[in-house]
Amino acid sequence: MTKTLLLLPGDGIGPEVMAATRTVIDWFNGHGAGFACDEALVGGSAYDAHGVAITDETMQKAVAADAILFGAVGGPKWDDVGYDVRPEAGLLRLRKELELFANLRPAIVYPALADASSLKRELVEGLDILILRELTGGVYFGEPKTITDIGNGQKRAIDTQVYDTYEIERISRVAFELARTRRNKVTSMEKRNVMKSGVLWREVVTETHKHGYEDVELEHMLADAGGMQLVRAPKQFDVIVTDNLFGDMLSDVAAMLTGSLGMLPSASLGAPDALTGKRRALYEPVHGSAPDIAGQGNANPIAMIASFGMALRYSFEMIAEADRLDAAIAAALDKGVRTPDLMSEGMTKVDTDGMTAAIVAE
Amino acid sequence: MTKTLLLLPGDGIGPEVMAATRTVIDWFNGHGAGFACDEALVGGSAYDAHGVAITDETMQKAVAADAILFGAVGGPKWDDVGYDVRPEAGLLRLRKELELFANLRPAIVYPALADASSLKRELVEGLDILILRELTGGVYFGEPKTITDIGNGQKRAIDTQVYDTYEIERISRVAFELARTRRNKVTSMEKRNVMKSGVLWREVVTETHKHGYEDVELEHMLADAGGMQLVRAPKQFDVIVTDNLFGDMLSDVAAMLTGSLGMLPSASLGAPDALTGKRRALYEPVHGSAPDIAGQGNANPIAMIASFGMALRYSFEMIAEADRLDAAIAAALDKGVRTPDLMSEGMTKVDTDGMTAAIVAE
Ligand SMILES: CC(C)[C@H](C(=O)O)[C@@H](O)C(=O)O
Ligand SMILES: CC(C)[C@H](C(=O)O)[C@@H](O)C(=O)O
Repeated sequence: MTKTLLLLPGDGIGPEVMAATRTVIDWFNGHGAGFACDEALVGGSAYDAHGVAITDETMQKAVAADAILFGAVGGPKWDDVGYDVRPEAGLLRLRKELELFANLRPAIVYPALADASSLKRELVEGLDILILRELTGGVYFGEPKTITDIGNGQKRAIDTQVYDTYEIERISRVAFELARTRRNKVTSMEKRNVMKSGVLWREVVTETHKHGYEDVELEHMLADAGGMQLVRAPKQFDVIVTDNLFGDMLSDVAAMLTGSLGMLPSASLGAPDALTGKRRALYEPVHGSAPDIAGQGNANPIAMIASFGMALRYSFEMIAEADRLDAAIAAALDKGVRTPDLMSEGMTKVDTDGMTAAIVAE
Repeated sequence: MTKTLLLLPGDGIGPEVMAATRTVIDWFNGHGAGFACDEALVGGSAYDAHGVAITDETMQKAVAADAILFGAVGGPKWDDVGYDVRPEAGLLRLRKELELFANLRPAIVYPALADASSLKRELVEGLDILILRELTGGVYFGEPKTITDIGNGQKRAIDTQVYDTYEIERISRVAFELARTRRNKVTSMEKRNVMKSGVLWREVVTETHKHGYEDVELEHMLADAGGMQLVRAPKQFDVIVTDNLFGDMLSDVAAMLTGSLGMLPSASLGAPDALTGKRRALYEPVHGSAPDIAGQGNANPIAMIASFGMALRYSFEMIAEADRLDAAIAAALDKGVRTPDLMSEGMTKVDTDGMTAAIVAE
């Protein structure tokens, strides 16, 4: 089995947290893992070098790789570049062309950090929920998507939310299957009271549930009420499945609940290949490129390192190694090592390299 | 000046909180206010009586009234009625046909209730922000909005997000004008990194700001980051202006932050009439119909009563009376009177009537 990784550090703190992750990959290679790494540009840095947010050559490498590790893209430097070549376009092209339709965003509260949440401790202590976001459909990619001049100094902007049955069905299956490995409950969120896509969403999730997943508990919630419930009592959830745009909003709220934004990884998976059973996969931190702290060597590398941990788990079936890496992260935190974003009284402040070294040591 | 009110109690706890509000209106009439009230059905109750969520006759009354007080609509009883006659359709028709484009949703933490929030006290104590939501455009009303059969057992659902320049411009003006009466800061939220409507939104808000509102501080934030910041540090905001769908999500999150969902009113305003200067207006609580507690006489009437308070302020220029009503609500709470949703140790538990009587007494 090959183990090729394409590293796409991107912009801002992306290269810093990717360098830290490379140290971890090297450690695994030193213990016989045999990862072959390639690296390429994406986002603003690709735009600066090539005038596009990702080149065709990099796309070919992405298609060929067993897994992609993605840092972060964007920053004020590229605020005024054209819509089609803006940094985010690189990420969206990867998601769409590799058909990475299933985006797993765990929101976990690390015991050592329960007090970092803006929520009261008892509401988030032990929190472990998973937002499963549909990632290749909806308003992100639907056509028409245009701004047109309609005369009289007026413009009209249009975005289109489109969902077909099969798109909802395949993400529902992933939701039910993931729930079975967890607490066996799925909450589906949409706005069927105002959106036709919400009506179809609920219909297809309900149908899919009836065919082979009735052992999993299924509940439906309007997305606005879901946002409220996430803030009120997040522990009521196990797996939340929702569309691309609601998933963007809700997963960010869920991430912030944990108080551990710099800690949260994500995985974006495609369908298993008919022949090999292998899924295309991209792993990235939930946090962004944080241009305000870039270049200082102070970024928290945990979300990126934990994203590599998800790659071990979902792309390489290295479950024991993934568990070991997660345990090393928790152990480093338990010892009181903290990057500036996590710093609190009585803890030991370290930079990116210090945190990485602490994890590798464990 | 006429003072006609159309009361639309709706479903669930709607009629209960509306009856409480009528007691308050009667008190004001007893002190010479001269409100003339009419009442009609909306939502599921209108569907049960007439087969539609609002009749043309009620729409005519709504057009003629100086202000509308709206309770709440919906409930599991109507889960399977047709899309066009579902309870929410009544509310959406009112918003659209009366052109109530500006939805004001204050999120306020009452001092007596600061501990009811799921957020840590210091993050929400004294919170007073205003979400200004565009209410007649976007994905709620854009066409096409369809589900079609596309063969092979597949359906396709489409919703369309549409915004024209003038729609964004008029809501921006309201935002800047409201900010001037508050802390003079506007945060505009959109997803311009993935939506063309977000690109136009930011462009028009920025332009409008340049023409006559440069004294107001303007900041832009991506809507997903905005959701995060609401949970992390809500006090950084003053007025948040955003589109219909993001406004739905973000105002619910903001409402939940306060821990006082049963307390929050809202106002939906149209443009001032060219001749009379009067704005069409509908006032409703932020909470829904709460079918689970309906019929028990235990609903918290404060949000509905405070919505009438907003009517005093925005439709009838009865500012002193509005202040007096708000003070009466705060005073009743300070005395420890609590409906079940607010109940905590050492307080006096009352039902809907008890809370109403306590407010009237003040
Ligand atoms: C960078 C941006 C295009 C992206 C999104 O909106 O999907 C980000 O917010 C995310 O959640 O991954
Ligand atoms: C009842 C529903 C149609 C409505 C909406 O989505 O606008 C509600 O959630 C609201 O926020 O007023």
